[in-house]
Amino acid sequence: MEEEVPGAMGTSASLALRLGQTIFSTASLLFMCLGVNFYTYNAYCFLVTVMGLVIPWSVSLVLVDAYCVFFKCSPHQPRILLVIIIGDWVLSFLSLAAASSTASVTDLLVDVGSSFCPAKLCGRYQLSAAMAFLSWFLTFASALFNLWLLPSL
Amino acid sequence: MEEEVPGAMGTSASLALRLGQTIFSTASLLFMCLGVNFYTYNAYCFLVTVMGLVIPWSVSLVLVDAYCVFFKCSPHQPRILLVIIIGDWVLSFLSLAAASSTASVTDLLVDVGSSFCPAKLCGRYQLSAAMAFLSWFLTFASALFNLWLLPSL
Repeated sequence: MEEEVPGAMGTSASLALRLGQTIFSTASLLFMCLGVNFYTYNAYCFLVTVMGLVIPWSVSLVLVDAYCVFFKCSPHQPRILLVIIIGDWVLSFLSLAAASSTASVTDLLVDVGSSFCPAKLCGRYQLSAAMAFLSWFLTFASALFNLWLLPSL
Repeated sequence: MEEEVPGAMGTSASLALRLGQTIFSTASLLFMCLGVNFYTYNAYCFLVTVMGLVIPWSVSLVLVDAYCVFFKCSPHQPRILLVIIIGDWVLSFLSLAAASSTASVTDLLVDVGSSFCPAKLCGRYQLSAAMAFLSWFLTFASALFNLWLLPSL
């Protein structure tokens, strides 16, 4: 079964997914952190923590994928793949939870009024939540493609 | 491959999982709804909506599982299983998002002070979020067991 599953580790589709994850999670972290006192709300601290885990994970997998695409290797040892799948699933759930927490808290702050959140800051929080949702979606796609590959090993 | 996968559709483990989902999602809905004006916060409305989807889904699958356990049938047509897996995944993501939204909004309300949420109400919101997390966990377990069964069909 050396047929390539599109999107599995070591293909160019996987490289694109990982690059997307890196970009969106970095964007989410930057929108949340730069010049904003995010640490007043627990949900925002949670988002920053989770993004701090997702970014190094995606960056290291971007490097592995890029190496495998350019030098034609195939990182399909079952044990490595299992670690990657479990990591992807855990990070995918964490980023979904963080994204929806951020979205709901921001929504509440917008409702309560401008004393808690000036219009410009609230827009940045909303952008951060949207980026986190996109990052979750791509992580989930990677996890699903890799899970699909697992029984064929 | 007529070997039984523990936790897959039609086994008693699956029946137990589905019963747990029904109990926890009903508890979450009741804690949130009874005598509380939950519709002032969007996150709570979302939780109520999602639980309103999870409860009929779990109840109908409890009935299917109970029928299959007691009358020794096996509902392993790939098409039916695929519908059940997709439904489980979608509901699992929705309930995780709803649970974490509720938890973070409740946490924010507790922080802001007792004017927004008297101690008794806040405790009920927290219980509701905890029940929703448990319901998510059981739905996820069902989805994973059924996904495991899929390649063997």
